[in-house]
Amino acid sequence: MSDSEIIETEALIIGAGPVGLFQVFELGLLGIKATVLDALHVIGGQCIEFYPNKPIFDIPAVPRCTGKELIDALMEQIKPFDPQFHLSQQVVNVDKRGEGDFLVETHKGIRFHAKTVFIAAGLGAFEPRRLKIDGIDEFEEINLEYKVIDPTRYHGKDVVILGGGDSAFDWTLELAEHANVVQVHRSQKFKAQPRSVAKMQELCADFKMDFIEGTVTKFSAEDGRLTALTIRQKNGSVCRLEFDELLCFYGLSPKLGAIAKWGLEVKQKSIVVDTEKFQTSVDGIYAVGDINTYPGKKKLILSGFHECALAAYAAKSYMYPDETVILQYTTTSTKMHQRLGVDDPYASELS
Amino acid sequence: MSDSEIIETEALIIGAGPVGLFQVFELGLLGIKATVLDALHVIGGQCIEFYPNKPIFDIPAVPRCTGKELIDALMEQIKPFDPQFHLSQQVVNVDKRGEGDFLVETHKGIRFHAKTVFIAAGLGAFEPRRLKIDGIDEFEEINLEYKVIDPTRYHGKDVVILGGGDSAFDWTLELAEHANVVQVHRSQKFKAQPRSVAKMQELCADFKMDFIEGTVTKFSAEDGRLTALTIRQKNGSVCRLEFDELLCFYGLSPKLGAIAKWGLEVKQKSIVVDTEKFQTSVDGIYAVGDINTYPGKKKLILSGFHECALAAYAAKSYMYPDETVILQYTTTSTKMHQRLGVDDPYASELS
Repeated sequence: MSDSEIIETEALIIGAGPVGLFQVFELGLLGIKATVLDALHVIGGQCIEFYPNKPIFDIPAVPRCTGKELIDALMEQIKPFDPQFHLSQQVVNVDKRGEGDFLVETHKGIRFHAKTVFIAAGLGAFEPRRLKIDGIDEFEEINLEYKVIDPTRYHGKDVVILGGGDSAFDWTLELAEHANVVQVHRSQKFKAQPRSVAKMQELCADFKMDFIEGTVTKFSAEDGRLTALTIRQKNGSVCRLEFDELLCFYGLSPKLGAIAKWGLEVKQKSIVVDTEKFQTSVDGIYAVGDINTYPGKKKLILSGFHECALAAYAAKSYMYPDETVILQYTTTSTKMHQRLGVDDPYASELS
Repeated sequence: MSDSEIIETEALIIGAGPVGLFQVFELGLLGIKATVLDALHVIGGQCIEFYPNKPIFDIPAVPRCTGKELIDALMEQIKPFDPQFHLSQQVVNVDKRGEGDFLVETHKGIRFHAKTVFIAAGLGAFEPRRLKIDGIDEFEEINLEYKVIDPTRYHGKDVVILGGGDSAFDWTLELAEHANVVQVHRSQKFKAQPRSVAKMQELCADFKMDFIEGTVTKFSAEDGRLTALTIRQKNGSVCRLEFDELLCFYGLSPKLGAIAKWGLEVKQKSIVVDTEKFQTSVDGIYAVGDINTYPGKKKLILSGFHECALAAYAAKSYMYPDETVILQYTTTSTKMHQRLGVDDPYASELS
């Protein structure tokens, strides 16, 4: 690949979730153009992947919006800065060749030359949390699954579903109509919609399914297939539960993926940053949103937004060390108005 | 005053600006009831005092709103938590009697007993930045003013206006129609609306007023009144400027007022907090928004919002040390939905 095929950008943002999008905005206010990459084929990150229609209540001054509405609003907000998006691109390598001189490559071979890099990759890639019993892994994709691909496969079968979150409940309720379902969870405390819990309890009362409060301790197998689980029930007794199919919904676990190899300081699957610049252990690379960690970090969208603002100011000073970068306000800064494409926001007041 | 006249509250928030209001919300999500005090007679702080109609562009997911619209949205957002407001109340004293045991008193003698105190007093009280020339203070309220009370007083007079911000321009343009105005500013760089600057230059070109680029070095006085200023012009020459009235608009300067006496660590007129809890040097007293300072602090509304979230979690742990406080999300937390008065946000999805 020749040098002419390298895409030049001042700031490269990895991650097109809400925080990645707001990073475009904060950089744009300071006159910095950004390019955004994402591994997904759509813009919006977790908001679009996991809760496009679920309401969010804690965005300041937005009493209620869905994940999709949040992303739509952010896209409108960054429109004046016209960022370039490159979707379905996984970053495989970030190479620092000098200060303000980063070469970033995706799995499709696209290369970007950037002055600064912002990692806003959310929880990174996701993988299901696995059932931790020695030897059970080998039955994965035989009759142990962490997701449902074809629901009809379970019809008429004895199915055990592990877990107490929304995914476990959604599939329990759906499959209970067509299969003999037993749901197993360690307690009666669920992380699911109260309505789903009530419906499950109703089905149990009507003998249409079963629920066991207990923990899986052992499994039995025969002819290369799982056949039964041993469950230690909360009341102390032990039971053996035979089945045809086992489904496990223990939630998702973050996975840093390629990012873990970029030489950044990492702690518990998060990228370590300071609380002034939100800069990683490599000067010129910033990490914002759910992927970073610092003392007191809370994985809130709101905190990610705040981090974007501070990282943008820090990056401006890093890129242009000779310029004095002062804090400006969008209510009064003429430069910011020009960048936002707002000629004279007070025209109506004075005229 | 008897003990029965003390108002009990879990959290007392001093300041009803945008950050004080969002503090109500973040506390409410965690089940903590708040009472809000403000020295002003209206809710909204700087947003209402200084820019009710000016657009703000950098609230995340709100591409454009005025100061008033921001406050209206926040008031709607905190409605489920039904906070008590006490306006026109200046806090004169905060007395820590023990952990989780604060007695707060206002200048009108109202007393509050609170488990925690949140200072969200913005820039505190304001005072105009004074002209710093030895001895000139004694002419204040004679013919040196920092605000205009009655514009007609200046009609037909020789008026010198100092400053290059919006206030200086607004009065220059208004008084130039009725008085002989000379505006003086140290440079041609203005912190004012471009439209105002253009209009001033137009008036100068038409000989309807004058502008001098320079710095005030001395004053002359006679019979207890100022008579002239000596100005060192940017081109090096010195001129003497006679006048009847002098107006100075050098902006506003924050003033901590009574807060300075509460025994909190203060640095450059701001309250020192840590970056994990946003707690002051006194356990149980938090400071959020423009009034606080910490390494890297930027006085942005957005940063204040983030601080509210972290301070709320910290305060919950401080108030209820035996409870485990885990991070929850408004998309999924049943408890938060109950507190928000949202029975089942997914009803439509499941039905």
